[in-house]
This record gives sequence, C-alpha cells and structure tokens, in this order.
Amino acid sequence: FKAFQQRAAQKKYPNLQMNGVFQADAGWVHQDEDSLNEFGRIEDGAGFRRARLSAKGSVAEHTNYLFQFDLGTAGIGRPTITDIWVEQEEVPYLGTVRAGQWKQPFSLEVVSSFRYTTLMERSSLFQAFTPFRRLGVGFYDQNADQTITWAVSGFRSGQDQFGGTYSNNSGYGTAERVTFLPCWSDEGQQYLHLGLGHFFNAPVNGVVNFRTIPEMFVGAHGNDIPVGSSGQPIPGPLNGVPFFVETGNLNVNVYNVLGTEFLWVKGAFSLQSEAMVNFVDQSGGNPMGVLPGMYAQVGYFLTGEHRPYDRKAGAIDRVIPYQNMRFWRDNGNGPGFGAWEVAARFSYLDLNDENIRGGTLTDYTVGVNWYMNPYLKTVFNWVHAIADNAAFPKSQTDLFGIRAQVDF
Amino acid sequence: FKAFQQRAAQKKYPNLQMNGVFQADAGWVHQDEDSLNEFGRIEDGAGFRRARLSAKGSVAEHTNYLFQFDLGTAGIGRPTITDIWVEQEEVPYLGTVRAGQWKQPFSLEVVSSFRYTTLMERSSLFQAFTPFRRLGVGFYDQNADQTITWAVSGFRSGQDQFGGTYSNNSGYGTAERVTFLPCWSDEGQQYLHLGLGHFFNAPVNGVVNFRTIPEMFVGAHGNDIPVGSSGQPIPGPLNGVPFFVETGNLNVNVYNVLGTEFLWVKGAFSLQSEAMVNFVDQSGGNPMGVLPGMYAQVGYFLTGEHRPYDRKAGAIDRVIPYQNMRFWRDNGNGPGFGAWEVAARFSYLDLNDENIRGGTLTDYTVGVNWYMNPYLKTVFNWVHAIADNAAFPKSQTDLFGIRAQVDF
Amino acid sequence: FKAFQQRAAQKKYPNLQMNGVFQADAGWVHQDEDSLNEFGRIEDGAGFRRARLSAKGSVAEHTNYLFQFDLGTAGIGRPTITDIWVEQEEVPYLGTVRAGQWKQPFSLEVVSSFRYTTLMERSSLFQAFTPFRRLGVGFYDQNADQTITWAVSGFRSGQDQFGGTYSNNSGYGTAERVTFLPCWSDEGQQYLHLGLGHFFNAPVNGVVNFRTIPEMFVGAHGNDIPVGSSGQPIPGPLNGVPFFVETGNLNVNVYNVLGTEFLWVKGAFSLQSEAMVNFVDQSGGNPMGVLPGMYAQVGYFLTGEHRPYDRKAGAIDRVIPYQNMRFWRDNGNGPGFGAWEVAARFSYLDLNDENIRGGTLTDYTVGVNWYMNPYLKTVFNWVHAIADNAAFPKSQTDLFGIRAQVDF
Repeated sequence: FKAFQQRAAQKKYPNLQMNGVFQADAGWVHQDEDSLNEFGRIEDGAGFRRARLSAKGSVAEHTNYLFQFDLGTAGIGRPTITDIWVEQEEVPYLGTVRAGQWKQPFSLEVVSSFRYTTLMERSSLFQAFTPFRRLGVGFYDQNADQTITWAVSGFRSGQDQFGGTYSNNSGYGTAERVTFLPCWSDEGQQYLHLGLGHFFNAPVNGVVNFRTIPEMFVGAHGNDIPVGSSGQPIPGPLNGVPFFVETGNLNVNVYNVLGTEFLWVKGAFSLQSEAMVNFVDQSGGNPMGVLPGMYAQVGYFLTGEHRPYDRKAGAIDRVIPYQNMRFWRDNGNGPGFGAWEVAARFSYLDLNDENIRGGTLTDYTVGVNWYMNPYLKTVFNWVHAIADNAAFPKSQTDLFGIRAQVDF
Repeated sequence: FKAFQQRAAQKKYPNLQMNGVFQADAGWVHQDEDSLNEFGRIEDGAGFRRARLSAKGSVAEHTNYLFQFDLGTAGIGRPTITDIWVEQEEVPYLGTVRAGQWKQPFSLEVVSSFRYTTLMERSSLFQAFTPFRRLGVGFYDQNADQTITWAVSGFRSGQDQFGGTYSNNSGYGTAERVTFLPCWSDEGQQYLHLGLGHFFNAPVNGVVNFRTIPEMFVGAHGNDIPVGSSGQPIPGPLNGVPFFVETGNLNVNVYNVLGTEFLWVKGAFSLQSEAMVNFVDQSGGNPMGVLPGMYAQVGYFLTGEHRPYDRKAGAIDRVIPYQNMRFWRDNGNGPGFGAWEVAARFSYLDLNDENIRGGTLTDYTVGVNWYMNPYLKTVFNWVHAIADNAAFPKSQTDLFGIRAQVDF
Repeated sequence: FKAFQQRAAQKKYPNLQMNGVFQADAGWVHQDEDSLNEFGRIEDGAGFRRARLSAKGSVAEHTNYLFQFDLGTAGIGRPTITDIWVEQEEVPYLGTVRAGQWKQPFSLEVVSSFRYTTLMERSSLFQAFTPFRRLGVGFYDQNADQTITWAVSGFRSGQDQFGGTYSNNSGYGTAERVTFLPCWSDEGQQYLHLGLGHFFNAPVNGVVNFRTIPEMFVGAHGNDIPVGSSGQPIPGPLNGVPFFVETGNLNVNVYNVLGTEFLWVKGAFSLQSEAMVNFVDQSGGNPMGVLPGMYAQVGYFLTGEHRPYDRKAGAIDRVIPYQNMRFWRDNGNGPGFGAWEVAARFSYLDLNDENIRGGTLTDYTVGVNWYMNPYLKTVFNWVHAIADNAAFPKSQTDLFGIRAQVDF
C-alpha cells in the first residue's frame, strides 16, 4: 500500500526539479614575444565560467522536459538559454523524439556533460568543428543490451544565444551519431567505447568562420564593445582570451565533418581520443578544403577510482570518490581526502588547406583534479599553446587555470 | 488527524512553488510585391517565443506572491520581469488587494493566460490598445455565486522591461473590468461570458504610438541595433516581424479605450469576440481621434473536449484532453491521440482618423491545435494579413507558424 | 525511528531550496535651484529595486552553497550574479572556509542583509567606502559562547556584474572584521554589539573613484547610453538618481579603510552607528588623503517588538511582529495590525582632503516601517540631502520613497 502511494505520488504531473552548477575560475597567462605581437596582452582574470540553473521534470508519463539557462561568462553578456527541450519516450520505431534546443549528437566530449570533462575546457576541436546546441528535432535510442546507441537530428544552425535563427538563406544542419560498447566488465570499471559521428551544415547566408580559443578561457564582458583585450576585434561583447586560430569568413555551400570516438577505461586509468575531418565545400570557385584535427588524453586516479560511463547516453558520467574530503570526525570515521586524478592532453587542429589560411594550433595540457566529494571539485590546468599562423611566427603561450566547480 | 497534519504542513510560511513554460516557434513568411516594398524582406525564423520560470506561494495566510521572468524572444534582448506582485486577500470592501506588476484588468484575451489562447498570438487589438503589464496597485473580487467579477487598478504607464517608469510628466493610467456569466450549465461545458472594460492613460510626456505586428511573431535580437530585418527602424533591439500598422508618435493629453467581451461555449464549439474603441484626446489643437478595432474567432474540438472557464478570474482556463497522446500500452489501455481543435479568426484594426494615419490591418487566421496532454500542445497557424497604409498600396502577407508549447 | 527517517531524508545530497525577494519602489524628488543646477532634473519614478531568486543547499555534509541572481534595477541593465559561493565547515583552525563571490566582511550594515535594514538604503558610507561583494577566498568563525566573531578574506577587486575581474595590474583586496557582544539579556531583547573592520584595496590599474547616491535610489535603464537623467555622464546604463558626491578618478597605490560598528538594542529601542576613515595612498606625488564618514540612526517599535540579532554572523536579523496584519476573523482571533517602527538617521561623508575634491554629503532621514508579517513590509522614507561640492553652491534635495518588500 505504501509503495502504491509512493508510486501515485511520483506520477503527479507536471513535476519539476531544480538543479544548478557554477564554476569559479582564475587564470594567469604568460606569453612569449610572438604571442604578445599576435594576440596583444591577454589579461589575467577571475570570474564565473558557468553559473546555471535548470528545471527538469515530466508533464505526463513518458513526456519529459529540461529548461536551463546560464548567467556566467559563457552567457556572452546576457543570460543564455542553454537547453530547452521536450521529449516523448516510447515512440514506435524512433525511440525517444526530442524537440527544442540541446547538444546535437556529435562528439563524445560534446555529448558528455561539461561537469565531467577531465580537463578545464573541451579540446580545440569542440569550438571549431562541432554543432553543439541547436534548435531542432531529433530522436535517439539504444539496443536492449545498451551496447549500441544511435541518435539523429535536424536543426537550424547559426542561432543567437536565445536559440533563434533568422534567415531566408540556408541555416540548416543535421547530426548523426552511433556508439558501440564492445567491452564492459567489473561493473563498469573496465570498458571500451567506440563512436562515429557526422555533422552536415549549410550555414546561414553561406558564410562560416572556423576558430577556437586555446583550451582555456578567462573572459570578461565589455560594454558591448566588439574589441577583445588583445586589441583584435572579435564578435560579441567578449573581452578575454582571444581566438588563437581562425579562418575568417569563408564562403561555402555546405561543409561535412566526420568524427571518430575512442574511450578506454581500465580501472584508474583512462585513455580518450577523438579525430575529425572537416570537408569544406567552398563556393565562388574555390576548391574543397580538408581540415583535420584530433586530441588524445590520459587520466589516472591516484586514489583508485575510475571514470564512469552512462550506457544509455553513450557518454561519460560523474566521478564518485571513495571518500569525501572531510576534516572532522563523524561516527568514528577519520578524515578523508577525496579523489585525486592526474591527466594530460595533446591536441592538434589544422585550419590550413588550399586558399584557407586559419593557422594550426598545437596544445599540450597537464592537469590535476581534486574531487572533494561527488559534487565539488577543484581543477588545476596548465596549457602550453603553440599557434602558427601565416601572418605571424610560431607563438608560445602558457595558460594556468584554477577552477572550483559545484553542481547540485 | 492526518488531515490536520496536512493542513499544518500547508500552513508553513513562506512557501514556494516553481513553474515554467516555453514555446519553440518556427515561422515562414510569404510576401506579395507590395508587402516587400513596404516592410522589406521578412526573414523566416525559429526561436523561443517565451521561456519563463516563476516562483509563487504565500508568505502568510491570505498573503500571496508571484515572481516570473522571461528569457525568450519576448524578453526583448534581456530577461524581462513579467509578473512580480504581492496580494492580500480578505480585505474588507475591496476583496483582494494587489501591488506590483501584473496584467491590468482589461480585455478577455489579455487577462486569460497566453498558455490558453486558441491561436498563436493574441489579436491585433492586444498590442495596439491594451495596457498589459504595469506596475501599480489594484483590487479585485467576485460575487458569492461567481457569476460577476470586477477589478480596478491604478498604475504607472510607460515602463521598461524591468517594470520601471521614470518621468515627471504624466505616465499614469487606470483600468477597470467587470464580467458577467448569465448562463452556466453541464458543469461548465456550456456557458456565456460577457464583459466590459475601460483603460485610461496619460502617457509619459504626452506621447503615444499605437501599432501592432500581424498576429504572428518571429523575432531575433540584433546587437542592440534599432533596425528591423525589414530595414525600417523600430525601437529596441528586435529584428523580426515588423509592425504592420503604426500611427507614429502622437501628441496627446490622454486616451480612453472602451472594450466589450463575448465568449460563448457550447460543448466542443466556442465563439469569442471583443471590440474596442480608442478615444484619443490629441494635444496641439488636433481633433479627437476615434480608432476602432474588433476580432471574432471560432473553435471546434474534433475530439469533443470544450474550452474551460475560470469563474473566479473571469478568464479562459486550461484544456484537458479526454485522452493523452501515447504510443505504448499502459495498464491495458490502447494508444491515445490527444485533443484536436480547429479554429479561425477575423480581426480588423483601424488606425486612421482625422490627422492620424496609422493604416488599417485586416487579418484572417486559420489554425489547428493538437493538445498532446494537458501541458504539451502543438499549434499550426496560417495568417493572411492585409495592411493598408496611406504611403503604400494594400499589401498581402502570408505567415505560417508552428509552435510546440510546454508548461509545467 | 521516525526521527531517524527524517534525519536520513535531510542528509540526502545534494539538496536545494529556492528563495526570493523583491522590492517595488516609488520615489518622488524635490530639488532646490542649486540641486537642479548641479544634478539636473531628477525624475520621479517607480520600479523594482531588487528582484532576486536564489538556490541554496548542501552538496555534502558540511559543504554548503548559495547561488543568487538579481533581475531588478540593481542588476544594472542585465541580471547580476549577487552571491555564488561554496563553503566547507569544520576546517581545523580556520572554521568555515568559503570561496566564490559574497559580501566581504566589513561594516555591520553591509554584512547584515538588505532585507533587515531599518531604512530604505544603506548609509552613504556603503557605496563610497566598503568592498561589498567580491570574488575571493576567506574564512570565518566564532567562539563557543558566540560572543566574538571574526572573518578574514582575500579577493579580486574591481569586478563587473558577472563577478569577473580582468587585469594584469593590481585588482586585489582584503577585508577583516571582528565583532564583540559584551551584553546579551532577555533572550536577545537587550544587547550591545561592537565591531572593528579593515578594508585594503589595490584597485585595478591604480585608479579609484569614491562616490555615492544620496541614500535613496530610483533608477531606470537607458539603452546602454552612459548618461544619467541629470545630464551628467555616469558609467553604465543607469538613468536615475545620480551620484551626489564623487571624487572622480584618483590615481592611487592603495587605500585602507578602518571602520567601527556600534549597535545597542534595549527592547523596542535601537541605536546603531558606524564610522569609517579612508586613508588614500595617492600615486604621482600627491599626498595621503584622509576621508572620513559616519552615520548614526535610531529606531523605535511603537508596537513593542525589538530588532533581533544573529549571533553566529554578528549581524542584524529578521523582525517578527507580535501580530500579523489581518482583516478577517480566524479561529476566534480579531484583526491584527502588524509591527510599526519609526526611525531616523544622520549621515555625513567628507570626500575633500588635500587635492581630492569630492565634496561633502550630509543626509537627514526619517522613516516609518510597517511590518505586515515577517516577510512583507512597507517602508516610507524622507531623505533631506545637502551636497556641498567645490564647483557648486550647497544644494538641498528632498527625496520621498515608498517601498513594498516581500521575501520568501
């Protein structure tokens, strides 16, 4: 009877649960002379990288929604709508059908939450080549064993931070992803994830600009003045770490990005890598441009934990320390130190091909993660970024970052 | 005893309940040559028309509050405070006294929630002639049978999206509304609603501009550039469907709008109509301008539901489908198709009189509503808008819209 | 067993509680001729001074967080992050360690919530001399008797409304505070609070501007145009009550503010006073500037309540009326009138010394507070402000304000 009551209570619609997350970052930058010449002085800084609240729940059985907005630096000067979607589960043939704005199915590190990334920022491939959040319609499902997942979406590309796209001339894209889990043992302490993805885009007005920051971001908001701290004009009211490589506006018909995913976890050790190739079908008589990129990273938990996996989403999940950090004595327990992980990443992005002269970016990153409890972590990163552009000699920039992250 | 416990639990103050709503819209526009000449190219678009969160509750017995903000397109470039008010119930003679910002008591389609409108947007009267949300003080009550309701408010007019009004020169208004329910039977499946309203305004600095969009809105936010996609400068950072009729700035002492309300529901069928006349007391020696407008709309539920009514507010209420949409088999039930409604509206707004040359707007709209469950609906609208302005020949514009709405 | 269950339920992490507060203000200004000449016409206005939502809770035992943002006028044109922090309790030697953005430990009226201030705005010392909210790291604790509290913080100074500070050139500060409670009797109806504070700041780029509004604020947001209603350019998109005294940009190495706190409560009567001296270490060969200020205020509850005190924070707490306001008969109780308090404040700020010519501001304020219930109050204030600047004769300005405040 009690169980029945509980079940009845759970079935009350609509229901709503509030959650949130914030990241307080501090960053310091050291530049060699070439970096100073190319990017200007990049200021040290401290700020909130993300500051989000969300409401999620169900409005009917099998009908779920998510509503999330961001007040942090990532909000680009104003609160940003991140995710707003509604989905219907148990649709014949399709599985779950979703409409609204969400992270489109392409790339392991994109589909996985930023909460669980091993390093402070996603790799240089993320900003340059992936669709990220878009307003569209899609579906996803998995096989009964949860060893294969797939997802397909169509969306409007090119929207502003309110999710709006406005154009009579293109602005449509699609994304598809399929993942495999050939090995899974020790209740998820050992597994191998493989994935394939495809992103097609016909950008608004046939114009696109591929670019990225150097895997660390410390940014401020100017008074809507489109000038970065570097003195380089950049779009939007950002005043922080500038783009290190950038093709400038390219006239294209469409472009297609193909991507591969690899994640191998063996206990405390993890090895993760993705590679992408961007086939840029240029208009105006310019030849096809082929832009490749890749990253590979390793992580090792000094305290023995492992990197968990969400088999339904084909994505990385939350790290649970064996012991929470604690300084006091509670029920006879001694002090705790949380979980400690060391990590390193190599990434490479090549935005040069044919007439395209965006430059190449090579980043070396080392990091230490201190998971004080499942919801609080402190991250230390050191990025050494080597940008090689046509107009400037090879520049060397070191970026040091500290992040405190709380999600709740 | 249990009832007592529950009652005690409910009496805990202050209490708070979160709710939200969002509308994902996509719109396509077809313009004849005159429309292109007059308004420029109106872009197709997709975006969030509204994206709201609210907190409501009580801080003491009979003392209630509401706090709601909007992150969507309607937020005009920044989050907008929609409703923030506190009210005290059971005040002698007055009933409930409310202070803060809320929808002032004028017009059935304004007082009713946008969640329950039959068509995607309210009629052309709404934007041109009604006070909508204002910061003020008012009271409302109803008779014991709930067959008559009344409401009176005084407020500052002319505020920005933060609810602020700043002026030493006018900027005050009042609104009054009374509604009647002469027929009510079959537990609300058949009823007749009648209403009368009055809106008085002494606008800030004696300047007012009556205008409206053509009953569909697809809008983006530019970089705070006060130019619409049409090339016509419009106030604010909107970049979307322009105003189709507009008087331009008129110098006035005050203006008074009188309105009538009619809603007849007979089972699955509904007929709703409002008419307004705006008496514009112009300053500077110009004569009294008289600007009329009206709309009439019908709706019919193919699946047999009816349009519910809130007797306390004198307003339209939420449609509850007989069956939720569902694709699976649950407890032996078969699939469900939700509720389906077809609807049509005619509206007419005349902004020409004496020296006033705002033009006339005639809109024909047809729509289909698919209520998938009480909290999720998909709406299809086709608006044919005929704008007749002095400076341009009669233009014809067709606007097609799809909306997914979730409220929770 | 039940108690155990409850305790288990409370221990569920992470947990979250939503709260909020809003203040609807209306203000009217009367200026003499000198005030009109100096500040231009200050417009009457009505708006939301604050409109906040917050989420607070714990993500693990002894690990707490707060997330609060503001959509009101205080949001300076966009939503402002007010508090975002995480803290760890029970840290050896330090007590509670906090990281993020919060009100730095300096000044009784700053550390106490704005919800509980006796008058509408904090004194003129607040805006001119205190650090207020900053992004940093600090700790706080109290002795076992809760008769002494202390707090120490280091932070980045000079941040924007998103909590971000970006500078290679200074922008660091510290704050320290210690409070004493030598007398405490009648369960807190009689007590004496004493406090000392220190604020050190090395401002960004060695530039600082000390200034304040005249203890009342009615402000609007212009279209990002940096001009006040007074015609005086002020930073930011504010369009409201201008700064009445202002040093202009001073070139400094650092500055140090010392402050004293005094609060004596004897039943319905309260006397509160703070004094500060700002030692400005100017650069460029200018001599040390010494800028003093102080305020003293009294309050008296006509209905017999007292001003409560939070011994853990060393701060003022929420007033609880003996009777809530009510107009109806409930369980045989008669009507209630809430709590009524009368109050007055004198404040003085001197921004003239050596080459510094910011002017002096002398404010006389009287007020009436009507606490309708613990969470709803209406406040009436009359401020008489005398500003004496070098460039203008002594000006007299009267500001009348009404505020309805709801916190939940």
